[in-house]
Order: sequence, then structure tokens, then C-alpha cells
Amino acid sequence: MVKKLINDPAAVVDEMLDAFISAHRDLLSIASRRVVERAAPAEAKVGVAIGGGSGHEPAMLGYVGVGMADTAAAGNIFAAPSPDIVLEGIRRASHGRGVVLLYGNYTGDILNCRLAIQRAADEGIDVRAVFVADDVASAPKDEADKRRGIAGDIIVFKVTGAAAEAGMTLDEVERVARKANAQTRSMGVALTGAELPGATQPIFECGPDEMEVGMGAHGEPGVSREPLRSADEVGRMLAARVIDDLECPAGSRVAVLINGFGATPLVEQYLVYRGVRDLLAERELTIERSYVGEFITTLQMAGVSATVTLLDDELLELLDAPARTVAFAQ
Amino acid sequence: MVKKLINDPAAVVDEMLDAFISAHRDLLSIASRRVVERAAPAEAKVGVAIGGGSGHEPAMLGYVGVGMADTAAAGNIFAAPSPDIVLEGIRRASHGRGVVLLYGNYTGDILNCRLAIQRAADEGIDVRAVFVADDVASAPKDEADKRRGIAGDIIVFKVTGAAAEAGMTLDEVERVARKANAQTRSMGVALTGAELPGATQPIFECGPDEMEVGMGAHGEPGVSREPLRSADEVGRMLAARVIDDLECPAGSRVAVLINGFGATPLVEQYLVYRGVRDLLAERELTIERSYVGEFITTLQMAGVSATVTLLDDELLELLDAPARTVAFAQ
Repeated sequence: MVKKLINDPAAVVDEMLDAFISAHRDLLSIASRRVVERAAPAEAKVGVAIGGGSGHEPAMLGYVGVGMADTAAAGNIFAAPSPDIVLEGIRRASHGRGVVLLYGNYTGDILNCRLAIQRAADEGIDVRAVFVADDVASAPKDEADKRRGIAGDIIVFKVTGAAAEAGMTLDEVERVARKANAQTRSMGVALTGAELPGATQPIFECGPDEMEVGMGAHGEPGVSREPLRSADEVGRMLAARVIDDLECPAGSRVAVLINGFGATPLVEQYLVYRGVRDLLAERELTIERSYVGEFITTLQMAGVSATVTLLDDELLELLDAPARTVAFAQ
Repeated sequence: MVKKLINDPAAVVDEMLDAFISAHRDLLSIASRRVVERAAPAEAKVGVAIGGGSGHEPAMLGYVGVGMADTAAAGNIFAAPSPDIVLEGIRRASHGRGVVLLYGNYTGDILNCRLAIQRAADEGIDVRAVFVADDVASAPKDEADKRRGIAGDIIVFKVTGAAAEAGMTLDEVERVARKANAQTRSMGVALTGAELPGATQPIFECGPDEMEVGMGAHGEPGVSREPLRSADEVGRMLAARVIDDLECPAGSRVAVLINGFGATPLVEQYLVYRGVRDLLAERELTIERSYVGEFITTLQMAGVSATVTLLDDELLELLDAPARTVAFAQ
């Protein structure tokens, strides 16, 4: 059993939101019980509404702010927000130019988003949903629409938010989100399972010399249980899988994001980055931008994922645009 | 034994530095094997040189950049950098207006810094050292000069870096660093011990229902072993100890920094923040700024510390000044 610093297990999400908002009230406000919005809502731009289950902090609420999302809707731990909450996130993000809704590609999220989109349409809000589906381990390439969303979320949030902030139309912002999603792939390995607040056992067990390859962001089973390997080998293996799926020709420019799942120290994340970097260099790919850290976590799961985005001039410019959020500032 | 994503345990620091620099080459360059500097070194300002043992990532190298440090020197895991390395960090930070050297208050760091300062003086560099000593658990108040430096480092780096960037003289930058150090206090609790790369046992063991109160940043013993308590109780207890030591009168303005040690999820860090916030409100203190996250870690140790800085107008303005580093950007 993992020791936890919590109060009532049933109150974790609401208490966390309360704390998050009061810690960052210069950037964020609470719009309704489970929806966070910018402290100074943007006017006259396409809205960007994000959301998902809790337990992934700093995602999703850490990406609300200038240059990224307008609102974030929070579900319970690892559970999609209800249609009511998704709808409230859409409403608060809407300023008359339409809303792009970005969620991970999970059954519960899709269902609740579709209900919310229908009701938003009845209220006259044009919503375009893009379900991020970057995890190559979760379905084969010919069923790419079944793939889960993991750390690729962050890249899609960033460029979509920048596109909206730059004043692009709803069609254009949606196009950017779809392109970023189509050009982004991720895969991860987990060394230990997460444990839900109030639980006494991890979601999955993994032996002392093993790692779970292709693990999902909520402890969903991976593609294989393998012997634990070195950081170099893990980085190279993840990069190879991702690059092969993405079909990056030599000479391509890419962004790399290494995401720590929660319990893996930054020093180990950088060692995995090194393996990714070396494999990409051998494949003659140029890493234009790199991000290493805990961007979307799975409570206290140990492990990392590697994300690669195939860049073009537009995506690179949008990646580099200013952002001012709790979890991503530049 | 904690599973680790590493290669050769003896190469962890050099490989991490290699990865860190290549991931962030827009911000950082390698000045010598163990010294990191800004990619675009600042001219005509007082230099700020920081450093310390590795295994605390993103500290120290994550705080090199505009608005914070000029250079960071990296020792081995949990070990002070050698005098040669400290000296090289000083040299690279020096642009003719003197250097403020900021290290945690540890015997090894002090010894090596003093040797380096002497040699820098021989080379004509005026160095003022400030050893951060914020950990109230590590020595009683009447022996405050024996206290260790923990997460208060980050506050001292931030305001000192901003003072230097603003063009203050060496005397002024030193004064700001000393004031920030004098007005900052921290204390932490650990739930599990860190495990060094290559080791098979944690530095300390802590029972399933216990926490170590007052734990140092390298697993040094705390003031007591106590039953594990709720996030509220832990936050309130840490805040009370820190505030009582700091002697904040009601009505004071403060900054709060909650630091995760490595394995504790952000959601738990925010729950502890909430306890700190509530206790400070009862004491009629106003939290002007809040920072929550992994600022200075202890490999994969679980636990958190709470830092409080008593603010005045000058410190608040310096805290808010722009910064562009890997780990702190605003």
C-alpha cells in the first residue's frame, strides 16, 4: 500500500481544485464546481475547452491560461467529467466564435462530450471536438481512431491554444488541432502501478525486474510485460516504435516530449530522453524542441512515455508562441 | 529496492547533464564538464552562481537563465561539487561586477565554496557567498547558522537573480540574498526514503503508518518519527512550525512554496498546500504568491516541504520579475 497525504478519499478532487484555484488565483478562477477558467477570460477568439479525469495533475487544469485553454473540466479520479460539466466548460469557453473541444480518446469522455456538444448546439454554440489519440500501443495503425490519448494531449493543447490566441477562425483552429493530433505519437513504459485514493492495492502489479510496455494513462494493460531494461534501451525502444508508426522520413523536424508518470525522478526522465535523442539522430531526424517533465501524470505510477510530433513551420511557430499557464509557461 | 530507469549508476550525473543540455540548448550551454551556463551569457551585471549535489533535479541546473542564475555547478548525487567546479561556476558567472554565490548550508558545500572563493579572489573576482539555511527542523533558532538549506533555495535564487538582472550593485544583490534567506523558513515530512542509483536499499526506512518529520533533502534524520497524518494536519503542522520560527506578525504578507520530494503526486502536494493556507489564514497572514511542485527533489523520496517567506515590497517585486529557466518561467 502506497502512503498518501490526503484527507477524505472521496473529497480528493474537490479539495485539490479548491487548493489549485487559491494557489493560482492570479491565473485561474472557478467557473462552477468542476470547471476552471482563466482569471481574465479572453474575448473575441475561438474558445478552447479541455478536460478529463482527475489524478493526472498538472493536467488538465494546469493548461488553462493565455496561449492554451480557456477552460478545463475535471472528472473524478480517472473518470470522464459528466456531460453537465463538459457543457459548462464549453459555455464558459464560448465567446461567439465557436469552441474547439479537446479530450483524450476514451469511451467515457467521447460519450459525455457528444451529449454536451449536442446541448451546446441547441444553445447555438458551434463545437468542434478533437479526441487526442497518440498512444501507438493501444491499437494498431489501421485502427488509429481507437487509440488512447496520453501525453500527446499537451502538444495538441499547446498548438491549438496558440492558434486560437492568434485569432484564427474556428475552421482553422480545428484544422490545426487535427493536424497536431495526426502528427503526434506516444508510447510509455510503467515500472509500478498507481494506487487510487482510498485503495490499498495498486491498479496492477509489476515484478521487481519487470516493466509494462505500452501502459495507458490509467493503468490500462500494455502490449507486453518485459524485463526491465536500461534507460538507453527504453528510450530507444519507445522512440523506434513511435517513429516507425509516424513514418517520419529522414530529414524531418520533430518535437520530443518525455512525460514522467508521477514517481519517476526527473534525472531518470532525462536519461530516457537521451536514448530517444540518440535513436532520432541515427534516423536523421532533427529535434527542434524538447520538453521533459511531469506533464500528465497517473498519480504515483512510476514510468515515462515518449512523444514525438512531426513538425512543419506552422506547428513549430505555434509551439513557440507565448503561453502563461500553471504548468506550461514560456 | 526501487526500480530505476538508468544506465551505468556511476554515469548518471554526466549522462543527465548531457541530456539536460541537449534538451534545452535554447536556454543552456555546458561551460565545462560539470558547469552549466546560460546559452547567451549576460554581460555587465552582477553574476549569480549556484550549485550543489545532483539528484535534486530540476535543482540546480533548472534555475539557470534570464532572471535567475548565470551558472550552476553540479556535484555527484547528494555530494558537493569540488572546489575546481565551484570555481569554474564563479568564473563563468563573472563579468567584472562581482559574483554572488548561493549554495545550501552544508559542510561539504561550505568547505568547497570557501576554497573556490579564495582562488577566485586571487584571480580578482569579488565573491559574496550566501548559504541558504531555511530548514527549521535541522537546528534550533539560536543556532540558525547551522540550519540546512532546502526548498528555500528556490526563493533565494529567484529574488537574487532578479536583483542582479535589474542592475543592482554587488552590495545590493548580496543584501537582497541575505534578506531573502533571513526571511525564509521551511520544514518537510518524508513518507519513504530515497534510494541512490546502484543502491539496493533506501537511505532510511519508514513504516507503513509512519512519517519522518523534519527530514533533510538527502535523507538526513528528521526531528521525530510520527504516525502518518492527513494532508490537512501535515500542512497545518508544517505551517505552524515555520510561522512560529519566522515570527510573522498578523497582517504580514508571505509567499508559500510547497515542494514535492519526487514521488508524491501533485494532487497530494495541493492538499498539503490547503492545510498550510488554512493555518496561515487563521494567523491572519496574507498569501501573496504560491508555488506548488517539484522544485528541489530527493530522487524518488515521497513527501513534501512547506516554505514561507515573509515579504516586503522589494521581495515581492523581485519574485514577480520575469524569469526564463527550464524549471521556473514567468
